[in-house]
Amino acid sequence: MCRFVVYKGTSPVELSHLLTKPCHSIINQAFDSRLRLDRRRPMNGDGFGVGWYDSVYDEESYQPCIFTSITPAWNNVNLVRLAEKIKSPLVLATTAGSLSLDNCHPFVHGRLMFMHNGGIADFPLVKRRLQADLPDVAFNKVQGNTDSEWAFALFLSKLPDPNAKSFTTALLRDAMFKTIASLNHYAEEAGITEPSLMNFCVTDGETVIATRYISSKTDEAASLWYSSGTTFSEFGGGGHYKMSKADKRENIIMVASEPLTFERADWMEIKTNNMVVVTPKMNLLQIPIVDKFYVPPSDPASLTRTTEFAREKGLLVPRGMETMESEELH
Amino acid sequence: MCRFVVYKGTSPVELSHLLTKPCHSIINQAFDSRLRLDRRRPMNGDGFGVGWYDSVYDEESYQPCIFTSITPAWNNVNLVRLAEKIKSPLVLATTAGSLSLDNCHPFVHGRLMFMHNGGIADFPLVKRRLQADLPDVAFNKVQGNTDSEWAFALFLSKLPDPNAKSFTTALLRDAMFKTIASLNHYAEEAGITEPSLMNFCVTDGETVIATRYISSKTDEAASLWYSSGTTFSEFGGGGHYKMSKADKRENIIMVASEPLTFERADWMEIKTNNMVVVTPKMNLLQIPIVDKFYVPPSDPASLTRTTEFAREKGLLVPRGMETMESEELH
Amino acid sequence: MCRFVVYKGTSPVELSHLLTKPCHSIINQAFDSRLRLDRRRPMNGDGFGVGWYDSVYDEESYQPCIFTSITPAWNNVNLVRLAEKIKSPLVLATTAGSLSLDNCHPFVHGRLMFMHNGGIADFPLVKRRLQADLPDVAFNKVQGNTDSEWAFALFLSKLPDPNAKSFTTALLRDAMFKTIASLNHYAEEAGITEPSLMNFCVTDGETVIATRYISSKTDEAASLWYSSGTTFSEFGGGGHYKMSKADKRENIIMVASEPLTFERADWMEIKTNNMVVVTPKMNLLQIPIVDKFYVPPSDPASLTRTTEFAREKGLLVPRGMETMESEELH
Amino acid sequence: MCRFVVYKGTSPVELSHLLTKPCHSIINQAFDSRLRLDRRRPMNGDGFGVGWYDSVYDEESYQPCIFTSITPAWNNVNLVRLAEKIKSPLVLATTAGSLSLDNCHPFVHGRLMFMHNGGIADFPLVKRRLQADLPDVAFNKVQGNTDSEWAFALFLSKLPDPNAKSFTTALLRDAMFKTIASLNHYAEEAGITEPSLMNFCVTDGETVIATRYISSKTDEAASLWYSSGTTFSEFGGGGHYKMSKADKRENIIMVASEPLTFERADWMEIKTNNMVVVTPKMNLLQIPIVDKFYVPPSDPASLTRTTEFAREKGLLVPRGMETMESEELH
Repeated sequence: MCRFVVYKGTSPVELSHLLTKPCHSIINQAFDSRLRLDRRRPMNGDGFGVGWYDSVYDEESYQPCIFTSITPAWNNVNLVRLAEKIKSPLVLATTAGSLSLDNCHPFVHGRLMFMHNGGIADFPLVKRRLQADLPDVAFNKVQGNTDSEWAFALFLSKLPDPNAKSFTTALLRDAMFKTIASLNHYAEEAGITEPSLMNFCVTDGETVIATRYISSKTDEAASLWYSSGTTFSEFGGGGHYKMSKADKRENIIMVASEPLTFERADWMEIKTNNMVVVTPKMNLLQIPIVDKFYVPPSDPASLTRTTEFAREKGLLVPRGMETMESEELH
Repeated sequence: MCRFVVYKGTSPVELSHLLTKPCHSIINQAFDSRLRLDRRRPMNGDGFGVGWYDSVYDEESYQPCIFTSITPAWNNVNLVRLAEKIKSPLVLATTAGSLSLDNCHPFVHGRLMFMHNGGIADFPLVKRRLQADLPDVAFNKVQGNTDSEWAFALFLSKLPDPNAKSFTTALLRDAMFKTIASLNHYAEEAGITEPSLMNFCVTDGETVIATRYISSKTDEAASLWYSSGTTFSEFGGGGHYKMSKADKRENIIMVASEPLTFERADWMEIKTNNMVVVTPKMNLLQIPIVDKFYVPPSDPASLTRTTEFAREKGLLVPRGMETMESEELH
Repeated sequence: MCRFVVYKGTSPVELSHLLTKPCHSIINQAFDSRLRLDRRRPMNGDGFGVGWYDSVYDEESYQPCIFTSITPAWNNVNLVRLAEKIKSPLVLATTAGSLSLDNCHPFVHGRLMFMHNGGIADFPLVKRRLQADLPDVAFNKVQGNTDSEWAFALFLSKLPDPNAKSFTTALLRDAMFKTIASLNHYAEEAGITEPSLMNFCVTDGETVIATRYISSKTDEAASLWYSSGTTFSEFGGGGHYKMSKADKRENIIMVASEPLTFERADWMEIKTNNMVVVTPKMNLLQIPIVDKFYVPPSDPASLTRTTEFAREKGLLVPRGMETMESEELH
Repeated sequence: MCRFVVYKGTSPVELSHLLTKPCHSIINQAFDSRLRLDRRRPMNGDGFGVGWYDSVYDEESYQPCIFTSITPAWNNVNLVRLAEKIKSPLVLATTAGSLSLDNCHPFVHGRLMFMHNGGIADFPLVKRRLQADLPDVAFNKVQGNTDSEWAFALFLSKLPDPNAKSFTTALLRDAMFKTIASLNHYAEEAGITEPSLMNFCVTDGETVIATRYISSKTDEAASLWYSSGTTFSEFGGGGHYKMSKADKRENIIMVASEPLTFERADWMEIKTNNMVVVTPKMNLLQIPIVDKFYVPPSDPASLTRTTEFAREKGLLVPRGMETMESEELH
């Protein structure tokens, strides 16, 4: 089961506190307990990817470093050792692994990192159309062959200059809106009716943008949560972490496919078809993605989206998880 | 969670019917759904190993072939492809993987294959003692550094000639008895009180011996089941397999850490501290391992062994699985 | 350095005699002794791939099996063990490895296997054009993202029905001619002047076609040789193999990027811009690929093609190898 | 071919300048061009290992970090990316890889790192004896099963407290003398006459000790060189590095199995059966290892040690390399 997490802090975090030590980290989280009944190709990988920026900002060389693997993170001795040495103020990590390194998230282009939790429905039917819209720089940058990497290429094509050294928050936000709009447009043209799950995350090292989105009016998107506070640290041993809020300032913002601590109150759910923007100055904004799949919270239909579709796709759904966890933990 | 399976048939089985196609194969079985709370070293591997003998018996070159991996079986494209091509009348497979190929089961020596589902308690305390008892041939044959491989070396040391071209069933059975007795003896000498879980399986390509054993009078061993019949095949699609009994003859005998079909009636549980012997002529015998940890079925204490210890070690226990599955499946 | 070999025999060969045992097999051949001065991306992989057909022909299920790896063949314990068990009358093997399993040769589609030793010049400049010409079946079959796999997709598009159960030799031959012609056409359209190296090999399990081709009138293609005989076996120990000719019949035909035995007389060089066809009945034909890059043997210019280009690309060139080997071996 | 390098500097070096960028780094060096005629088990791995200490000294947590792999370094995308981000004042790196992560150098214990370039002759004959001499802390610390790791365990057993937070240079030097002496003693007891190649390197993060040693009076040890200067940097592009000496101070000391730059004058050969000690204050001492295999430089026999044995073992020998390189480079 595919998960992701983003950490942005005013000071660097040791990667181990995010990845390997918390018992509820995306690496150590509960595994999919269902039988693997779906044995159709393509097989799902158990790999992972982590990307981070340096602690020290250097205008010239401020590029993310990536560590990816096609083998499971929980067994990776190099990851365990490196995570205790590396500190970063901005980290993306995902278990959206692959059988091929080329397909491992997060994807990088210059200063930008991108990851995707979900899937573009019937991607073969829109792939040619998407590719036709790409300028060469975006077309040729794709190394692997997944819907997610092509979605990143599409995102790059929505930026005035994907090789720029800096991006305003507005530029990144608008490029994300346009990416989703184009993917919806392609699907409509191709007559695709199955919804696409588009939980995307992109950052340039300063702004972070994450979406919780599904191209459906009646289904829930895969889950997405955030938490903010002043410190994120272990308490009482055993890998139990919590987010503390010492004062009004928010030194840390985390966005994740599911809560990373047992303290559910620390975590706020991002509503389906909304975008979260974390600005360079650590402000967090929620922005609705208003298109034909949007249902305003005032509309009673917003309460009746069903989780079956996301669940079927092996993605997290909030309600189910709450139930499972309350059973497990209490 | 570590599992194993043995298949012995009068005719060869395509490995895919054992490993990759059944939705309930050891590879596709339910994953451990608990949080990975135990993050102590050594980390558990997700690898696997398969060993098989040729379909055609050749007195000179009758040696097993092994395919092992430190990456998960369910993702292994080579395994998926090979399993559809290879046929064998005697197959051992296990998910007792490792982070190191040297430590992957099954272990091979000449015609013999060996695997272990469990663990020798406080192995560092008995390792030197065990090694001292080994002749050079057994001492130097160990490539990795696990309790299981040293247990195999000990087993080899109990055979008159571990390099022999054939072994009687009695020789293998007695060597297994002696192996368990020595391990118990070493533990006693070292003052170890924690029980050891010794579900071993050994074969020379003709006889198969599997034990369900724990060095405790009050705990249950890790589970072990067997099934026999005339054909093992898919019915109704979806990877559902069943064992059919067309007549009295038993053409197929399978021994596994848990039932490999949904038809629970197809499977018989092997009692704790018993050994199963499958003879070259396909007779199946259950033999109690009578020592100070043995409790006869007539003794009421035989009904009160508790499953907590095996469960804590991440091994399967019959009762728990039944409950989980009835919830899942009905 | 990338190499390939094809074996076709009237009876099956144990893969070990082709891959792991001969000291001069493609796996054990001399390594590139130059400093790795070219440290540009993309990095070259050291993986390999082997594909083979069953010994027994079955009209329904006659599909090749593939074993690929992104780690070097000479270290692969599974390969070493499997090669001693598997026998096949038609084997393709290559060290054209990759960092990603998706990119490992040989590529398979239904009954067809394909591999490529070389490179399409400036592939990004022709990729979109090539893709536009593909029908969906060929476009969507590509898993990775290399020039070689797209060339295979192009080849498939030249067949009337790439999913057919059988192909005539003429169909395969013509599809190969058309594939090369289209690649040349795309390059011309795009104004590409660097030559492409197109040593391709394709088989449907019965016919084998291999090309030695370069889109240049003045450069040599990467080398290609063949050998035929009645038995291919070790003599005198030490992994030295030779091809024997007991009589006029040819039971074995091998095509390889360089001679696989020390007996140079056993091997015939295939001329640049020629195709070798091995028919189902084991006839071997050499057919010139006559286009604007063809130079007839009668033309003195055919003797002055230079090997610099292929050498620069890290491919084998006949003259250089002869020199190196005579130094080494005598 | 197995190589190692140690870097110690007064300021941190970016690992890429040591490992991935120099065209003459141990990773990019010339590969063994001989046919792999020796196809006996155990197969040689192509993996590698790098260990380094933090740039900032922290008395509590000053432990090395290790990155190891069983796949070749030149293909490792994670290594390439990490090497551009990690800086360290003390780095050990080796291509003494393995097929098993447990066997990859460098080995670590607390603050200590250890690597070995060579081999203990007839190790199975002395293994039990060596193990018997180890205290439990050293015996149980071994994860894999190689002569090198057991030699490290032996080294640990020669220290008063292998878990100490600091070691004097004298303690480490004496432990190294004793390790070699014990290995010689075991070989003598066992009647082993083949020489052992013992190029060892150990460091506690402050002192570095490296030996060039063979238990023979007539053979050369595997080669070992050192270089010192004020800066180690690229000049003229193309991955060509050189060591500059701006003044008398030595800010950088490197010890390596062969020169890492084309400027041969930058490098001094360490004599066979000598030890190099780099003190915490960057003094470099050469100390002869005086035992029955020592030949003083004044003795004419010191000039007639032959390189055949080391060469046969696949290790570097100074004379041969000089010849090969002058051919290659000029």
